[in-house]
Amino acid sequence: METVWLNGKYMPLSEGNVSLEDRGLLFADGVYEVIAAYNGVPFILDEHLERMIRSADGIRLESPHTTDVRRQVIHDLVTRLGVSRAMIYGQLTRGSSRRSHPLPKAPTPTEYWFARELPPVVTKNYREGVHLITQPEERWARCWIKSTSLLPNVLAKQAALDVGAFDSLYVLEDGVITETSAANCYIVRDGNIFTHPANGRILGGCKRALVMELARRAGIGVHEEFIPLDQAREAEEMFITSTTLNVLPVTTLDDNPISNGRVGPITGRLMEAVGDAIREKCGEIVMA
Amino acid sequence: METVWLNGKYMPLSEGNVSLEDRGLLFADGVYEVIAAYNGVPFILDEHLERMIRSADGIRLESPHTTDVRRQVIHDLVTRLGVSRAMIYGQLTRGSSRRSHPLPKAPTPTEYWFARELPPVVTKNYREGVHLITQPEERWARCWIKSTSLLPNVLAKQAALDVGAFDSLYVLEDGVITETSAANCYIVRDGNIFTHPANGRILGGCKRALVMELARRAGIGVHEEFIPLDQAREAEEMFITSTTLNVLPVTTLDDNPISNGRVGPITGRLMEAVGDAIREKCGEIVMA
Repeated sequence: METVWLNGKYMPLSEGNVSLEDRGLLFADGVYEVIAAYNGVPFILDEHLERMIRSADGIRLESPHTTDVRRQVIHDLVTRLGVSRAMIYGQLTRGSSRRSHPLPKAPTPTEYWFARELPPVVTKNYREGVHLITQPEERWARCWIKSTSLLPNVLAKQAALDVGAFDSLYVLEDGVITETSAANCYIVRDGNIFTHPANGRILGGCKRALVMELARRAGIGVHEEFIPLDQAREAEEMFITSTTLNVLPVTTLDDNPISNGRVGPITGRLMEAVGDAIREKCGEIVMA
Repeated sequence: METVWLNGKYMPLSEGNVSLEDRGLLFADGVYEVIAAYNGVPFILDEHLERMIRSADGIRLESPHTTDVRRQVIHDLVTRLGVSRAMIYGQLTRGSSRRSHPLPKAPTPTEYWFARELPPVVTKNYREGVHLITQPEERWARCWIKSTSLLPNVLAKQAALDVGAFDSLYVLEDGVITETSAANCYIVRDGNIFTHPANGRILGGCKRALVMELARRAGIGVHEEFIPLDQAREAEEMFITSTTLNVLPVTTLDDNPISNGRVGPITGRLMEAVGDAIREKCGEIVMA
């Protein structure tokens, strides 16, 4: 039985619910976080909890619970779950009120958190790399907010799956690539890493910040720059990062191989570095 | 007590709910409709129900109920409600399933409908016109789909209210105006009406189609064209339309009056024409 913490109370996830006039349901008026935990230890938790507050601020929503409460709830949930690899999902909405666009003066936010086992790692994807397709950027302009306005992302992910690809990579009208439907994107050029600046058009991933730091520590140059699609096609390597994917190599873009179509050395080093960082904080991971 | 029809059953609205993993709540993976009814008669109902199916098609969601069922439910709801001026809200989501972006292979959609009394008409707004502010278009690119991805709209509406305006008018990067957070927008030039083409960047309003038809019948020229903001500022008249607002004059744009700052004659004629059309279909409206 899966457990959810909903507005201060634990209950079976299947029994938790929200009103039909919850603004999360009516207006996508909410934000969320996904956090990975290994051996019961949430990874880079503070970064995620800080981002949740930034996202909430971005939609002018005051958090009904402190970060300390959230930390305790997450600890309880992963401890109860007792699996080696977990993902924690938390959502905060502006709560239920008579349907009307303007922000309610005294909202009663809805907040809930649950944890479940991460799906098994698809090792083939990490060994061989995945296939991305490109599609025009069509999301709203404030992608830096981790909001539940995810319909475009859902459709972009499915469009990729429909043609046997892993995900869609968004391309702005001026030809600059941003990120995929659920991960930040990077290319390697002259042995350096390039990624789109965290300027509002992408979600500033917690894993992104970590990977950039680990790369710098390893002496790899890191540049936040606009990357034209043409340049991406000529990249030495390409990879994506997210909370649950960590560092995932991309070896095919729109049916064309990236470089020789194999996982490159920089990507490999960063995959290892992230693995090391996780082991350092959370201990050895049992892939069961 | 308000009643909702949820997945085939009537119940108190306060008792209706959705699961915490309803995709409407997690991903804004749903569409909706708002329909006005006068004297228990839904106005241009077929147009709304057809649009709901178009919107659902646009997100690859098969309707779990026929239009006949929806028509019956709406009839029941407004009859029970028994007020002179009602609004009916209907939402369709891809239902509940284990959180994951891709479309579930066999979704169990959530569908609900409720009706309530329309708020009183703010007669001052119709007599004097309202104030719009402009803001950069920042919504996703498929605004023709009436999806619940409405967070940008909520923030745009509130930004207008914050400065004492009625709503925000979106302006594309190239300076073309599209629509407001919840209404289509029109200007009058040389006695003709101009409005943004229904090309995907706006929601093709049911009231919009009606107003264009009524204008043509009244011998007023109607043009679907891109309208640069500069041109809008020089307009003879401006107005907006929506299901619940009908024809609402705009007399101030970003603190500048439109023409002489009074409700213009073409706007006045269309306000009357829509009123006549409603009375013809639904009978005299008691403003109680």
